[in-house]
Parts: sequence; structure tokens; C-alpha cells
Amino acid sequence: MSVSQVKAWAKRWNEKVNVSIEKVTFDKLDKWSLDKEDALRHESGKFFSIDGISVSTNWGNKHYWEQPIINQPEIGYLGFLTKEFNGVLHFLLQAKIEPGNINHVQLSPTLQATRSNYSQVHKGRKPAYLEYFQNAKTEAVLLDQLQSEQGGRFLKKRNRNIIIKVDDEIEVKEGFCWVTLRQLKELMREDNLVNMDTRTVISGISYGSYDLKTIDFYEYLIGRDQTADLPFLNSFLANVNSYNSLDQIISLITDRKSKFDLDVKKVPLGMIKDWVLSDEKIYHKDSRFFSVIPVKVTISNREVSQWCQPMVEPAQSGLCAFVCKKINNVMHFIVQLKLECGNYDVVELAPTVQCLTGNYRETGEGKLPFLDEVLRSKPQDRLVDSLQSEEGGRFYREENRNIIVHLQDIDLDLPENYMWMTANQMISFLRFNNFLNIQSRSLIASLTLV
Amino acid sequence: MSVSQVKAWAKRWNEKVNVSIEKVTFDKLDKWSLDKEDALRHESGKFFSIDGISVSTNWGNKHYWEQPIINQPEIGYLGFLTKEFNGVLHFLLQAKIEPGNINHVQLSPTLQATRSNYSQVHKGRKPAYLEYFQNAKTEAVLLDQLQSEQGGRFLKKRNRNIIIKVDDEIEVKEGFCWVTLRQLKELMREDNLVNMDTRTVISGISYGSYDLKTIDFYEYLIGRDQTADLPFLNSFLANVNSYNSLDQIISLITDRKSKFDLDVKKVPLGMIKDWVLSDEKIYHKDSRFFSVIPVKVTISNREVSQWCQPMVEPAQSGLCAFVCKKINNVMHFIVQLKLECGNYDVVELAPTVQCLTGNYRETGEGKLPFLDEVLRSKPQDRLVDSLQSEEGGRFYREENRNIIVHLQDIDLDLPENYMWMTANQMISFLRFNNFLNIQSRSLIASLTLV
Repeated sequence: MSVSQVKAWAKRWNEKVNVSIEKVTFDKLDKWSLDKEDALRHESGKFFSIDGISVSTNWGNKHYWEQPIINQPEIGYLGFLTKEFNGVLHFLLQAKIEPGNINHVQLSPTLQATRSNYSQVHKGRKPAYLEYFQNAKTEAVLLDQLQSEQGGRFLKKRNRNIIIKVDDEIEVKEGFCWVTLRQLKELMREDNLVNMDTRTVISGISYGSYDLKTIDFYEYLIGRDQTADLPFLNSFLANVNSYNSLDQIISLITDRKSKFDLDVKKVPLGMIKDWVLSDEKIYHKDSRFFSVIPVKVTISNREVSQWCQPMVEPAQSGLCAFVCKKINNVMHFIVQLKLECGNYDVVELAPTVQCLTGNYRETGEGKLPFLDEVLRSKPQDRLVDSLQSEEGGRFYREENRNIIVHLQDIDLDLPENYMWMTANQMISFLRFNNFLNIQSRSLIASLTLV
Repeated sequence: MSVSQVKAWAKRWNEKVNVSIEKVTFDKLDKWSLDKEDALRHESGKFFSIDGISVSTNWGNKHYWEQPIINQPEIGYLGFLTKEFNGVLHFLLQAKIEPGNINHVQLSPTLQATRSNYSQVHKGRKPAYLEYFQNAKTEAVLLDQLQSEQGGRFLKKRNRNIIIKVDDEIEVKEGFCWVTLRQLKELMREDNLVNMDTRTVISGISYGSYDLKTIDFYEYLIGRDQTADLPFLNSFLANVNSYNSLDQIISLITDRKSKFDLDVKKVPLGMIKDWVLSDEKIYHKDSRFFSVIPVKVTISNREVSQWCQPMVEPAQSGLCAFVCKKINNVMHFIVQLKLECGNYDVVELAPTVQCLTGNYRETGEGKLPFLDEVLRSKPQDRLVDSLQSEEGGRFYREENRNIIVHLQDIDLDLPENYMWMTANQMISFLRFNNFLNIQSRSLIASLTLV
């Protein structure tokens, strides 16, 4: 299928389905119970819970706060099956409904399953294609990494991002289709079409270590002027001409992890400082950040399914942006070291700018580095500018504006906790788990090589 | 100084000092208080505490246990100053007294300081050379990694392993001397002479990424037959001919971290299941594993210093061994994926064999893979065979036998959770923090290239 055919296909799936989200009260949240002294939990003890936490840190200006957080300790699969057709690797995409999605149906990985899912706690059907991932032979695994989710919303949550290459015939089930990586990247230019889980898996692909011929970027390059200026290709492939060495970057991360503490403790959900627990939601007293809302979901397709769950509703949309600049003829990105309360290991590598714009501007916490430069940038300098959704299984219509902007005039000297990295360096950290946060991975996924 | 001069120098320091360790009772442990409902803590709230924990996991045969553990959340420095003399890098070694050391004085890094130390909670003097580490310029940092301590004894403890290269003149203070890396490796052949902290810092050196000329291995090689069989050099330098790719190894680690849980909770120190808290110690009911003992330390040199602290005394000495085999003309090591309760991230890469031999043999938990092969190996196949101490500030006369044995006949097929890795691959993981446990790092430190 061509890119426009895939879009039409997703649209058809969208039209076939009806999703209704009814905001209810916590006491009407079937199978869930809210204990003010404890947490909001599912009766099975599985899936996830909404906990209260207190956060103590010596990082930044705010040294203590409390907040609700999603606690989902199980590691799930986010997986793509891939197969070569005519010498080009194709990815098996799924048109998947998630209740919180702005477009109800978004383009998802082949498999998206929590351990509760695939051990069938909910007694549903076994997820399609699960067995390919469970029985994969070592040599068929192209990528297999643990990666984090949003550190401000999830407590140390990680997923298994995995890509399997299949040589045998595979049945393409209803709601699935094959696309190339280049097509996927083109689809990402659309607002809220490619879901977060697809983006995180794709972000980990290390072009240097795979056979480029099987990725269609190679095809993309053929016929072009090989002497042309290809800053992104260099940034992905070259391990030379980088402004900082990998060891210098590791040293800066080590320094921050050594000097800064992140101490997270559980507090009763009904007693979170500065948060209000009403019948309808848990919200910040100044309506900042996000709320936890109890909803009843009804999805009607050919069959009707209905369930209740809590969701996280953001106070407003956010902005995630990378500023980049060519240094030594290789594109470099400004990467931020950022502490978020749910991080597995104190700090992660975040985009140049990551914020809820509305909140930030109101609170007078000081000027956020590079925010003005990104917002005031010329459209023609923006390599990427689109709205992208957070995961619709937990987040209610949450979207972030994703921008990558080339600002060649930006100063080489950076503020504390910011550093220049090439795409190749970011991907090197991606391989070794948990270094890049999900916002930076979403942006990396949208990068094209040329 | 020559290696024998360094040994004599360490011996002289040893003779000059008197260390007495008096085992006392918990109520005589000055400045420490034991709360059976809580933990054993220092009055400052700093240094470390002895906590009780419960461990739940689906790994291995034992799915629940309780034990005492050392809780020391601060990240300290383990650092070497280095300087080039005649084109060869030298390391500034310290003859350092630690109360638990078998030889009271062992050869330590230039700096060994917890955050409590260097923020001077104990109101002692500022550690020598601290300012070099605190003010190091980026370009002077040769290595800077967070590395774990013993996962069976410490709760998520990590240290900052750091090597700084100094170009200016440095005063060599009393109790310090310059040695080359080759000399350090030779000194490691002695029993209990080079301390654990030196070994862990040295283990992270990545020969591929530094200028070999400044490491004296280069010197060591010059004049030798360059066509000679150098399996260890290849194992350190070559990123080719490895039995498993780096991504295959990452995939196996991801798989285990995804499937296995490690859930650690605090329990009151006076109520640890299967452990007895007496006036004199906290010990396992079958006298297995280790005890926590309250001691009064008196160190007399020119001055006398005296303090009380708890220490961990092992039930018997242990064994840490790598089995290696030449594959594709490159030396490969059998690395074990091992879950220990204090691990920061579920599993770490451990030596082929890591056990308390005495305990293991008595308990009939099944045959430990490769234990017999290591113990029955011919002395001439052992590249390394020495006794090495654990850190003498926390452990009372704890030593492990360190063996690296070349068993060319060992089968290529390995049991579950074991895999073949080259030294280069192990060092790649070492760069990205927390992957190799301290026992495997101690062994890697003792490896020579030829």
C-alpha cells in the first residue's frame, strides 16, 4: 500500500468503530476500588494502580512535592514483526483502537501487550501474533531493548521494545498491514496517526549495525547525488566528528547521577499534598499538570465491549522539541539531562525543550532554556512539526507538539545539564536501555536520514 | 618503584600500624542505635544503616526470603589520579588502612570517599586529593562510570569509578606512590594486597578507546613477536569474531529483566525470618551466608583513632571464577546472568561461578554449573588464581578466591542464563553502568592482555 492508501485504510477503520468515553464517579468504576488510605486498584491486583507518592530531591528548584502516579510494574511487549519483500524490510502495522486516542484508531506495533494481557488475567483472547515474539529465535531478533515511559506519569515503568524478522509466510490478519520504515516516517508527519508505541520501537533502530540494504533508506538514497550534503545520514552513521566523545557524555551523566538524589515514597492516595480527591477526579489544587478521571469505555465495532478504568487527563497539551545545529558537518542535537520522579535511574536524556507550555508560562519558575527560540523559529527551519499522542490506553486525549528545528546560529556553549549529541550517540545510549526518555525517542523516531 | 619495591613499601606501612578489632555488643556500639522495629543506624543519619528486607522473585528456586542488608544510598568516589611519565601512564596508589582488611594496609585508589566523607559529616579531615576530582575538567576525565557493589550485601549501592589525568606537577603525599597499570596487574597476583576499590576502577579501562601508547601494555608488547598468538589482546580490542553479537547479548538481558521480578521491601530488623538477633550479632539460624557484628576499631599509627561500627562477617570464603575458551581465535568468557537482591536492575552479569563454596556444597540446591570444572582444573590452565578481599570498611576479613581458567574443551552450548562474551563486549557493557557485577569486574581487572 502507498502512504495515502495506508491513511485511507486507517480512516476506514476509524469510521467503522464507535468509541464512547463516559466520565463517571470513582464509586461507579466497576471492578476498581479506591482506598483513600492506600491506592486505586483493580480487583485482580493486576493491570495498574494509581498511587500517591512523595518526591524528595536536591535537583532543581523544587525539592519536595507529592503527586498521583501510575504504578504498573510489569514489563510488556511493544513489538514489530518485520519481513523482507523485494529486498526491503517491511513492518507489520496494526490499526488499533485505544480509548484515549484523539483519532480512535492509530497505527500501532504488531503486538502491544502487558504481561497481564498475555498471561490473560482479563480472560480475553490471546493477542494476535504473540507466539512469534514468545518463540523468537535469537538470530531473528533485530532489536530488543527495555525502554522507559513518561517519568512524570509512570513509576519506573518500562516496556520491552522488540523487532523480529520473520522469514516464513505470515498471515496478515484483519486490521494489519505491511509498511516500510520510510512510509512509517512519512505517516509520522500526520497529526496523531502513528501511536506512541510505534514511535518508541522505531526510535531504537541503529542504522549502523543493520544491513542498510534491508532498510529502505538505502533505496531512498540510491539515485541521489552521493556527494550531496547529508547531515542526518552522517549524524546517524558516523561515530566521528562528534562535539563530545561518548565517554565525556557518560561522565556528565555519571556526575549528575552521583550528585543528585531522587527519593520516592508512597503516600495514601487520599492525602496527597496540593491535590484534591473528589468523587469525579483527583486534580491539582491549581488545576495544573493532570487529573486522574474514572471513565466507562464503550467500544462498538461488530461486537460491543465495555469496561471501566481510570485515565490520566492532561491539564493542557505539551511541547517536545529538539534544537539541532551542524557542527563539523554532522548534525548535533541539544540533549537535556532531566530528572523526573518516575525515572528508573534519577536522570534521563530528554529533548531540548519538554514542557506543558501553558503551565510553564504561568508559574514564573524562570525562563525555560530554548523555549522562545523553538516557538519563534521560522517554519522552514522546522524539520518536524506535528502533534503526537501519548498512549491512549492510559492517557485521555493527550497530545504533544513535536518539533525538530535546525537553528544554525545557536551558540555552541550550552547551559548546565544540556549537551550536544549526534543521532549516532543517542542511538548508542538507546541500545543500553533507559537512557533516553520517551519524549526524546518519539522525536528521534520522526527523523529521516536525508 | 619496581613491583617488589611497592610490595616492600606496603609491608613497611603494614608494620607501622596497629589495628585492633574488638567484637562488642550492640548496646556498646557507640553512636549507633539498634531499633528492632526499624534498623541499625548511625546517630548522624549518615554513613550507612543495616536494614532488614524481604525479597520476592520468580527467579530460580527460592522465591521468598528475608535477610539483613547494608543500606548506603549515597554514591561515593573511587578515583585514581594518573599522570604520564616517560610516555607511560602512572596511577597514584594509596597504602590505605581499612579495619576489616586481612592485611591491614592494602593498595587503594588515590581517593576513596563517600559523600558523608567529603561533605565531612564525621568532621574529619578532607580526603587527600579530593579537589582534583571535584574540579576536574572534562578533557582530563579518562573514565567516569557508576558501578555496583555486592548485590547480596548492599541495597542498590553504587560508586562513581573515576580516572583523572593530570598534566601539572602533583605532590606525592606520604602513603602514596606511582605505579603503572602493568605493575598494578602484577600486584594483583598477590593474595589480599590490591583492594577491591582499586580492582573495580581498573576493570573499566577500555583499551580500544584510549591511546594505547599511554598504557604500558603497548610497551609490554613492543619487541615481542607481533605475529604471536595474542588471544587476550584480541578479546580486549576486537569487536569482530565474537560468538554472540552485542545485540544478541542485550536481547538476552532484556528478556530476563522482562520476565523476572525482584520485589524488595523493608522489614523490621528484629523480625527477619530465619535470622537471629542476639546481643553480639545478627546471624542466620543455620550459620549460613554472613553475620552482622558490632565492633570497636582501634587504629594506632602515630596517632590513635578509635570508633565503633557494624561489620559484615562472611560465614566462609567464596569463589569467583571465569571459565574461558578460544573461539574464532578470540578468547571468550562464560558470563552468567545472576539475580541478587540488592541489584539496581534485577540481573547483572556475573562470573561463570560465584558462590560461597562451603554453603553451596552443604545445601544440595543442585549442581552449580562449572563449579567442578573450575575446582578440578589443572593449575597450569589457570591464568589467575589468587585470594582477593572485599572492601575492608564494611567487611570483616572477607576474601574470595579469584580464578580465571582456560578450558579449551568446554562445550560451546551453555546452560540457560550463561553466555559467551569477549572482554571487549564485557567492557562495552561496563561503560554503560551497572551491567557487570563487582565480582566479574574484580576478575576482569586481573586480566593481562598477553
